[in-house]
Amino acid sequence: MAKEKKLVEEITSMEEDFAQWYTDVVKKAELIDYTSVKGCMVIKPAGYAIWENIQHELDRRFKETGVENVYLPMFIPESLLQKEKDHVEGFAPEVAWVTHGGLEPLQERMCVRPTSETLFCDFYQKEIQSYRDLPKVYNQWCSVVRWEKTTRPFLRSREFLWQEGHTAHATAEEAEERTIQMLNLYADFCEEVLAIPVIRGRKTDKEKFAGAEATYTIESLMHDGKALQSGTSHNFGDGFAKAFDIQFTDKDNQLKYVHQTSWGMTTRMIGAIIMVHGDNSGLVLPPRIAPTQVMIIPIQQKKAGVLDKAYEVKDMLSNYRVKVDDTDKSPGWKFSEQEMRGIPLRVELGPKDIEANQAVIVRRDTREKIVTPIPELATKVGEVLETMQSEMLERARKHRDAHTYTAKTLDEFKQIANEKPGFIKAMWCGCQECEDALKEEAGVTSRCIPFDQEEITGTCIHCGKPAKHMVYWGKAY
Amino acid sequence: MAKEKKLVEEITSMEEDFAQWYTDVVKKAELIDYTSVKGCMVIKPAGYAIWENIQHELDRRFKETGVENVYLPMFIPESLLQKEKDHVEGFAPEVAWVTHGGLEPLQERMCVRPTSETLFCDFYQKEIQSYRDLPKVYNQWCSVVRWEKTTRPFLRSREFLWQEGHTAHATAEEAEERTIQMLNLYADFCEEVLAIPVIRGRKTDKEKFAGAEATYTIESLMHDGKALQSGTSHNFGDGFAKAFDIQFTDKDNQLKYVHQTSWGMTTRMIGAIIMVHGDNSGLVLPPRIAPTQVMIIPIQQKKAGVLDKAYEVKDMLSNYRVKVDDTDKSPGWKFSEQEMRGIPLRVELGPKDIEANQAVIVRRDTREKIVTPIPELATKVGEVLETMQSEMLERARKHRDAHTYTAKTLDEFKQIANEKPGFIKAMWCGCQECEDALKEEAGVTSRCIPFDQEEITGTCIHCGKPAKHMVYWGKAY
Repeated sequence: MAKEKKLVEEITSMEEDFAQWYTDVVKKAELIDYTSVKGCMVIKPAGYAIWENIQHELDRRFKETGVENVYLPMFIPESLLQKEKDHVEGFAPEVAWVTHGGLEPLQERMCVRPTSETLFCDFYQKEIQSYRDLPKVYNQWCSVVRWEKTTRPFLRSREFLWQEGHTAHATAEEAEERTIQMLNLYADFCEEVLAIPVIRGRKTDKEKFAGAEATYTIESLMHDGKALQSGTSHNFGDGFAKAFDIQFTDKDNQLKYVHQTSWGMTTRMIGAIIMVHGDNSGLVLPPRIAPTQVMIIPIQQKKAGVLDKAYEVKDMLSNYRVKVDDTDKSPGWKFSEQEMRGIPLRVELGPKDIEANQAVIVRRDTREKIVTPIPELATKVGEVLETMQSEMLERARKHRDAHTYTAKTLDEFKQIANEKPGFIKAMWCGCQECEDALKEEAGVTSRCIPFDQEEITGTCIHCGKPAKHMVYWGKAY
Repeated sequence: MAKEKKLVEEITSMEEDFAQWYTDVVKKAELIDYTSVKGCMVIKPAGYAIWENIQHELDRRFKETGVENVYLPMFIPESLLQKEKDHVEGFAPEVAWVTHGGLEPLQERMCVRPTSETLFCDFYQKEIQSYRDLPKVYNQWCSVVRWEKTTRPFLRSREFLWQEGHTAHATAEEAEERTIQMLNLYADFCEEVLAIPVIRGRKTDKEKFAGAEATYTIESLMHDGKALQSGTSHNFGDGFAKAFDIQFTDKDNQLKYVHQTSWGMTTRMIGAIIMVHGDNSGLVLPPRIAPTQVMIIPIQQKKAGVLDKAYEVKDMLSNYRVKVDDTDKSPGWKFSEQEMRGIPLRVELGPKDIEANQAVIVRRDTREKIVTPIPELATKVGEVLETMQSEMLERARKHRDAHTYTAKTLDEFKQIANEKPGFIKAMWCGCQECEDALKEEAGVTSRCIPFDQEEITGTCIHCGKPAKHMVYWGKAY
């Protein structure tokens, strides 16, 4: 029993120390491991399988909108990175530089891509001549490197996995439309699949992507009241096109610059799943993203017929991602493991259940026990998975709404920032001085200017001048 | 018409200059493009879609054998690379070195992975304590970098995509079994899916992987009679385990070293598909790997009802990967494009066909035309795709067998090597001196010691001493 208690005991409670709880879950649920490469991690099978499901579902949604996948080099020659001024200023301080190939020094050093705008521009410059070549709606799945000083698993690591879409269009309108389309795709994916509610909006100029005309973002709220930027979509206008000379002959025979966008989502979403849904027993995975949705745990499995029945039930549930834990561990230990790993449902099945031709479904999130006749199990499991998925989204939404505050005065703003972790909605004049001051004085940053605007007051929370926007503020990962 | 002829005219014929033909096809079928990054390429949508199909099918087969996917860092600290002596000697001369992170020089330089044995060992050293932790059967899909001096699209580039499986086992027998299992998986995949027949065998000590006890390989023959190493599977014994101290407590309570394997297949298989199946009209894709299997080409599409019927036929063929080419190009131009891109079947459909309630199926490989009543089209297309798939394999096998020669004397060996591109089967004593001499004197390397041995003569083709093995020799990519 001492050994069995250990698994659960070793998790710090989230109320006591959220950061330590997060690290404990990441390790105990076997999502990652640290490596000899500082700031880089191993994504273990349980973690990578979540990423595969994210990839699969996002990729399907991308392709429905006409996206095609490509692969570009991982290296960017220094001269290429430097072509767009804002972009190089934003990224040069945090890239890894390759200086030698084999035994020879390189003539020009190259960085490992922190993002691939410059490479796509170089590619598009050669590919695009005519309006017939447009639009280009390309995406790649790859890893990128940013030389971060402090790192945390999934949330901030020197290398991470992502997809980056890069598009080129004939008109500004079409580019803007694609930017918003992809932001909405990300938002729908987060809500429908990850059960994470998001705020859709635009970044302030200070917070936008290096080189972008406008950056759109979806922002989600973690259990501890901190915000997480969960996906971004950038409209570059023709800035990169001018820097890289990407022109096309339009239908009217005029030479014009293309309008470009880019958009990305990363492995940090695995961190978001943990921090939105997890509890003090470990991970809780939304059914639609869970690599294993149902774990069948036989009770007294050495008794004749128990394991056979478990496999039989597994076959009945073959429409779902289902496993039988037939290891020689005790049922209690198996329960703890299944809970730690966030498997949405377990089905308990012992000699008495078999006698009564029933099994016990247990929900990971609510721990509700549902005694179900075995012939009805397949239908019931489907229903419970659906219910769990939608209730997880609802619960996360309620938590977020309960931790979203409105500030009408600067004092109120500071008090909330100081005492109540969460989003703060407040009016803003639009100038960076006030944005900087709120960070300085209240320790929060602007998360986004939401598409759904409200008029809380008429004036900026900081300077009192006429307000331009309602903004979500918060402390962020 | 001048413009329409251009597409086909621009391909060099394969008889005239095979290397130029290959480069032309790769470019004209829009599989890749060159980049500003020397030796690295862009894999364009038509090329990447083939890779996605390869990934999908291999990954499915891997998982059926218990493989789990993971992701390890792309960087290897120099000290880690140096832990296994043969391995570092094999790879250090051709790696790219990262020396700076952001604005600071690194304390220890790191290479971009050329392969990940050392990283997996570092990981397994921490993960494996007990026999209960074994086997580990992990794989990752990623890109790797090898600083090649001369590069060719897909066949040899500084960065390429691959999968690398890395396993650890309790016994030597189990490791050997897994090594052979994966080699056979690759061989079956090549033959069943890519329609490329392969020779299964073992590499000589000279040609084996740096650090391996044994390297197994599948070798295929390109249309020009050159060989291509198409997949390898390595048994490391306990060499890496000793270098990295990967020990476990076995059931008998003894501390033992694990036995390891690794195995990989790369984007060079796209090159193999081109060079085995292509012709002077361009690419020919085996139906099972083709991103688009059927292209419907309407004739006189401006006539009322033609395009509608084309879309209707597309819906009838929805079990296949099917598209309609409804662009405003001429049918002849569309035929050329479909042929260049290697789409297995085209379905021609014009006003007269519609009147007769029929369509014309044209096979890309044989150009056979099959007039088919529209109600039977779906069934017929399925049959023709199946026939084409198996005939492509058969044709490639005949071509390979017709270019496989047997040499009984050194003179005969040299003459074949000089005059007849293809495989040469000949006996070998097993010593590296003879292997080196055959390279020097006849310009060929040992491709493999095939599992299917024959006794051609009793003595080594070079030194005349008693022969140990029959070996396949050839010139290779």
